[in-house]
Amino acid sequence: MSPRKPRFSGVIPPVITPLTPDGEVDAASLERLVEFLIEAGVDGLFALGSSGEAAFLTDARRDKALEVVVRAAAGRVPVLAGCIETTTTRVIERAQIAGKLGADAIVVTAPFYARVHPVEVDRHFRVVKSAVGLPLLAYDVPVSVHTKLTADQILSLAADGVVDGLKDSSGDDAGFRRVVRGAARFAEFSALTGHEVMVDAMMLAGADGVVPGLGNVDPHGYVRLFRACAEGRWDDARAEQDRLTDLFRIVEAASAATAGGSTRGVGAFKTALALRGVIAHAAVTAPMRELTDEETRVVAARLEEAGLL
Amino acid sequence: MSPRKPRFSGVIPPVITPLTPDGEVDAASLERLVEFLIEAGVDGLFALGSSGEAAFLTDARRDKALEVVVRAAAGRVPVLAGCIETTTTRVIERAQIAGKLGADAIVVTAPFYARVHPVEVDRHFRVVKSAVGLPLLAYDVPVSVHTKLTADQILSLAADGVVDGLKDSSGDDAGFRRVVRGAARFAEFSALTGHEVMVDAMMLAGADGVVPGLGNVDPHGYVRLFRACAEGRWDDARAEQDRLTDLFRIVEAASAATAGGSTRGVGAFKTALALRGVIAHAAVTAPMRELTDEETRVVAARLEEAGLL
Amino acid sequence: MSPRKPRFSGVIPPVITPLTPDGEVDAASLERLVEFLIEAGVDGLFALGSSGEAAFLTDARRDKALEVVVRAAAGRVPVLAGCIETTTTRVIERAQIAGKLGADAIVVTAPFYARVHPVEVDRHFRVVKSAVGLPLLAYDVPVSVHTKLTADQILSLAADGVVDGLKDSSGDDAGFRRVVRGAARFAEFSALTGHEVMVDAMMLAGADGVVPGLGNVDPHGYVRLFRACAEGRWDDARAEQDRLTDLFRIVEAASAATAGGSTRGVGAFKTALALRGVIAHAAVTAPMRELTDEETRVVAARLEEAGLL
Amino acid sequence: MSPRKPRFSGVIPPVITPLTPDGEVDAASLERLVEFLIEAGVDGLFALGSSGEAAFLTDARRDKALEVVVRAAAGRVPVLAGCIETTTTRVIERAQIAGKLGADAIVVTAPFYARVHPVEVDRHFRVVKSAVGLPLLAYDVPVSVHTKLTADQILSLAADGVVDGLKDSSGDDAGFRRVVRGAARFAEFSALTGHEVMVDAMMLAGADGVVPGLGNVDPHGYVRLFRACAEGRWDDARAEQDRLTDLFRIVEAASAATAGGSTRGVGAFKTALALRGVIAHAAVTAPMRELTDEETRVVAARLEEAGLL
Repeated sequence: MSPRKPRFSGVIPPVITPLTPDGEVDAASLERLVEFLIEAGVDGLFALGSSGEAAFLTDARRDKALEVVVRAAAGRVPVLAGCIETTTTRVIERAQIAGKLGADAIVVTAPFYARVHPVEVDRHFRVVKSAVGLPLLAYDVPVSVHTKLTADQILSLAADGVVDGLKDSSGDDAGFRRVVRGAARFAEFSALTGHEVMVDAMMLAGADGVVPGLGNVDPHGYVRLFRACAEGRWDDARAEQDRLTDLFRIVEAASAATAGGSTRGVGAFKTALALRGVIAHAAVTAPMRELTDEETRVVAARLEEAGLL
Repeated sequence: MSPRKPRFSGVIPPVITPLTPDGEVDAASLERLVEFLIEAGVDGLFALGSSGEAAFLTDARRDKALEVVVRAAAGRVPVLAGCIETTTTRVIERAQIAGKLGADAIVVTAPFYARVHPVEVDRHFRVVKSAVGLPLLAYDVPVSVHTKLTADQILSLAADGVVDGLKDSSGDDAGFRRVVRGAARFAEFSALTGHEVMVDAMMLAGADGVVPGLGNVDPHGYVRLFRACAEGRWDDARAEQDRLTDLFRIVEAASAATAGGSTRGVGAFKTALALRGVIAHAAVTAPMRELTDEETRVVAARLEEAGLL
Repeated sequence: MSPRKPRFSGVIPPVITPLTPDGEVDAASLERLVEFLIEAGVDGLFALGSSGEAAFLTDARRDKALEVVVRAAAGRVPVLAGCIETTTTRVIERAQIAGKLGADAIVVTAPFYARVHPVEVDRHFRVVKSAVGLPLLAYDVPVSVHTKLTADQILSLAADGVVDGLKDSSGDDAGFRRVVRGAARFAEFSALTGHEVMVDAMMLAGADGVVPGLGNVDPHGYVRLFRACAEGRWDDARAEQDRLTDLFRIVEAASAATAGGSTRGVGAFKTALALRGVIAHAAVTAPMRELTDEETRVVAARLEEAGLL
Repeated sequence: MSPRKPRFSGVIPPVITPLTPDGEVDAASLERLVEFLIEAGVDGLFALGSSGEAAFLTDARRDKALEVVVRAAAGRVPVLAGCIETTTTRVIERAQIAGKLGADAIVVTAPFYARVHPVEVDRHFRVVKSAVGLPLLAYDVPVSVHTKLTADQILSLAADGVVDGLKDSSGDDAGFRRVVRGAARFAEFSALTGHEVMVDAMMLAGADGVVPGLGNVDPHGYVRLFRACAEGRWDDARAEQDRLTDLFRIVEAASAATAGGSTRGVGAFKTALALRGVIAHAAVTAPMRELTDEETRVVAARLEEAGLL
């Protein structure tokens, strides 16, 4: 077996989309964020993922965000573009636009809202791939899609050249590991974990890279973590992971009594980036809400503990 | 208490969207379907609901379908338009277009894909309503949205003039009944059940109307059923309901081993309408599949049993 | 087709198990409760159901409770005994004891805790039936068992003489209705709904009887409701159902912030019966908790509204 | 901080319960199995867990199985006893018997079947602990219990001396890791993972031990794996884990079309042990079924691949 050369690997943060207070894409902040991430040493950028508020932005704003990321990246690292839509033809529309805007790959979930059979999930990926020439990563995020992609589904699609990688945000580490083992025979397949508090463990298990929402806030930490793993320094990796896991608790700053998971995650990442001076505003899209002053202080305190303020 | 005058009541089928074999909206078939429904005596039309493949159609096709329904209805019955989108600003975009195209009301779900708190679901409806002047019906369809709207949420939104009715496809008849009881004090609130096999029971419980997917196929039956209920002929109602429940088994024609709920429902309704000569093709959007010849024969047999062929 | 003669029909409350403050079965209170129910006109008694705290009582207390109910009923109405156990051999043990203690039928759920396939659920009922001579009602309570019995499963078991009826606490009224229709050909099959806020609707749909937890508290109301339905007085039935539905809100007295569904239901029923003077104590088994004084006042207020204090 | 000395650590297989063809505990086979495990170097035995068919055995058979394990272990390794019952008083009964039979600790789940609030789950563990003197491990197995124990719940109970460890079969590795980190301050707390295909990763994350169902079949492999982890030989650990993960596919031998998770797991482990000559019969309790001859051949083939036949 020839050595694996995954097309996408390393640290690939799902770039958040900074907004102005009136809800438009804040291009200047987004450019600064991209610069911040690339300078920290990330290996790619994933625009318009769940952290990028893809499900919250109008199509015009989605396009604007992707355009800015591609331009700011300027070919230094590849840009993956989320095409988060309910069903096949809608995904294809977004994917074709992503291609025109310069994305290097598309990231596609199973259908949602629609009630589909696994056979139809399989068809979905095949029809999208045949309509769009770009590399395609399957995005497994059952907390949003309410369908789990199985290892068998992904490996079968990979065998047929339909999917070129997996972005796993399922929390099912054993399932991810089955994909990793099964994909060992596909030279370019990219097995990326979105499980930002398990990177050391998933790297031990053979992941090619990581797509950490928290990587927006502390890209240097994830770059260190990835390198420690890649060099087999597992004790260092665990220590860095533990530090990042503590930092990850910024997602608990917004009260679970008034904020859903999207607000708690994206809202906290944006708040932290505003506090760090990378973006101008912590604004989020309705029906999410911005963090309160008190919640912002909690985020600030954790950033300080982590030495990031 | 003044007598109730719900704004929307009676039989309001969720109109399916006929397609040409290459996936475009088949305007001629859709016009015939609207005529077929209105002649059967329905009281309104719900375009771009789940049965209307809203989640499967591109925006251009959604617009086309709504435009045809409004034009064909020609003001004889009100047209409700589904605005099925993941979050608030995306719903508002669709709702504004629906208004321009002549819809009499919009039908809106809780956010989906996004992970939101009930407080955020509440905010979602309020922001949409304040941005759009039209009557707004909340669409409770947890099988697709994966969030259940509670009776308390809906009644609170109704009390504040945010929602003007409920289209309940939750299967939670007790919850629907709580809305019905609580909404008795809102003169114009429309409590519509989508539970097409429980219409007699839900009418006994005080529903104002019904939105039956199967009503595309047998509108005359649902009109008879609604009238029997309205006139207190409960034995007649039950008999008609039982007949329609048997007919509803056309949704079991497509094999559960290869077809999801969307295919089994919408695919069967379209197949039945093609067999009845109302629409030209039974085509559905990917990743759904059309019924096979054998499955079509099962639909035909049930239509014959029901005296509809 | 010969006229149906369901073996068990009418109002069959799931009898709660009164306890002394130290957790033993309070036989005197239980005798008074049985007398209260029979004098109100109920048609049967279901001991050791979910409302009877079957899952909370030790085997010795289960036996004691059933023994008291059978003795107090004294043959005036049939006694059904819940055999709530994880798997087949454990159910059989309980069922054999129930038979010895004089139960007229056993009520059995699908396996729980165990992870079983529908084929194994089917086998479960068959093995239990073949080991125990008594009539067997399937108890469909997915909120506790986390498996839904399908209409097809139940009708197949009924056709083979394995189950003699259904106690449906699934909230899936459409599924219940399918059983009712399908069971029309089984002369003695008993279709009992546990959906205490939908009795009128379920009777319209063809139910044979009702097993209302709230029937412990207001058996007279459920007897009136059942008779109105049986006599086709549907407006009277709806009015009585609406009154009982309001009363049912006693299950909201215990705070959802500190009490689970079992406490909120059984705790409220016991509190109401203590307030009405039928039982001596409102004690419940750990880890449930008794209602607080303030919560008890809420129950009392609702009883007064309902004219029951 | 003093160095941690977890009371229970290393490899602690959940011992299966061999049965005779007529369903009685096969004491001779169970003795051989205990000997086989201890000779392989395991550090403890967990009797009457899910793999031990606790939910399937009558109380008499449960007692018999525990008695045999304790006697066969003869004090060489500690014996943990599952007390798998629906609610508090029933657990206490089982726990008191376990104590009398010589168990060194009890393993207790949250209540099941009962519908309880997290506050009640907390009370459950506290009441059990105060009634039983033995060390108590919380058993988190949501696939059976349908309640997830949170890290905060467990750590709060640990801080108060109520739980002395965790047996985690939730598949939520991030949650397990939070317990591990939080429990670092409790000198004797035992963090045991049941995630048998993630042992290397969980050891990297700080687990104290592992409770692998598959450890019945290949205890030598798990002992090697544990030692590699303990000695920081992570590449060796991964290789051993990968080998065991492949072997774990024996749980796919029984067809998912006719067998539930319990049958597929326990049935396969017993079949493998019978093939290896450790136990006499692969019999399981109803409603599970024994593996077919063809399925048995699949298990045999995997054992051969793994060098175990």
